[in-house]
Amino acid sequence: MAAPSIDFFYEFASSYSYPAAMRAGEVAERAGVTLRWRPFLLGPIFADLGLTTSPFNTQPAKGRYMWRDLQRTMAAASLPFRMPDPFPQNSLLAARVATALPDDGKRAAFSRAVYRAAFGDGAQIADAEVLGRLLRDIGVEPAPLLVAAGSDAVKQALRAAVEAAKAAGIFGAPSFVTADGELFWGNDRLDQAVAWAARGA
Amino acid sequence: MAAPSIDFFYEFASSYSYPAAMRAGEVAERAGVTLRWRPFLLGPIFADLGLTTSPFNTQPAKGRYMWRDLQRTMAAASLPFRMPDPFPQNSLLAARVATALPDDGKRAAFSRAVYRAAFGDGAQIADAEVLGRLLRDIGVEPAPLLVAAGSDAVKQALRAAVEAAKAAGIFGAPSFVTADGELFWGNDRLDQAVAWAARGA
Repeated sequence: MAAPSIDFFYEFASSYSYPAAMRAGEVAERAGVTLRWRPFLLGPIFADLGLTTSPFNTQPAKGRYMWRDLQRTMAAASLPFRMPDPFPQNSLLAARVATALPDDGKRAAFSRAVYRAAFGDGAQIADAEVLGRLLRDIGVEPAPLLVAAGSDAVKQALRAAVEAAKAAGIFGAPSFVTADGELFWGNDRLDQAVAWAARGA
Repeated sequence: MAAPSIDFFYEFASSYSYPAAMRAGEVAERAGVTLRWRPFLLGPIFADLGLTTSPFNTQPAKGRYMWRDLQRTMAAASLPFRMPDPFPQNSLLAARVATALPDDGKRAAFSRAVYRAAFGDGAQIADAEVLGRLLRDIGVEPAPLLVAAGSDAVKQALRAAVEAAKAAGIFGAPSFVTADGELFWGNDRLDQAVAWAARGA
């Protein structure tokens, strides 16, 4: 029987993807579940709904609540948190770089670094120099990766990830999809998703 | 020092208010926190945002997910669950009846019965006869309550609850507000809200 696995769909502009990315690896490993890191973009999915920005921006009370809830969540996790400016950040380049990296630990390490930069340090993750520094920090030479990130193969792979997300019924991030197609949405559902995957395998 | 308390804002049309209402009393009591049952209406709050129905209806993928997530949630809680038809139900009369009841246990008992009828049994909670039966089940004579529910005093009290919800920053249901003004949104935040209230007191 195959080892249980879970597809972790994350978007670098998504605030609740930050706490999820910081602990998903550990939670999955503890349960013996393989985590597939699947960067994708929410923009095309929101656009299908006629939305042009984050619901946290169009609904001020919801936006204010989100920041306060994240402050509490990140304080409980002892992780730094600050509001990115602008929010949401343009996440296209970061998603392409993550897609260009192999999912053998490097993609996870880069992804965690991007979240920490965006939501912990206030860095501009649309900036190729910022991403280059984060790559260097995890031991990856930036130049070839940034070239690969602009290739047709990577662009197509990222588009395929968005299509896979839509096909799985995804409408927000972070989302988790088990091998039997069960969808879980939100940082609050990470543990439940991993438990489902471990039980089903 | 006063005993810790929490305002539990709930809306009878709100799906996630169902699991919250079924366990809020027990969770609060275990922590020594007094729960104030505050029925309110989301309609006027959504209308301020230009929304005319539930976001679960305007976003089909999100709606499909919500039902599946609630199925899982209610199965884990061993509570019956079915999709109300129509969704959302018109909750105005139920909210007025709940407002007319004293918050001494009767309001909580009636509110739980309404949720179970709407989301467990598929009953039409806009129907005065359905609500009358639920009142009788908890030992309250229906006729005087249904008359009181139509009084100006009760209508004003319910409008005041909506204003109090807005002032607290509420944009969805269920929501929990502690004595120090901390807001928690969603069934997933019930335990955290109660812990906050217990700690702060």
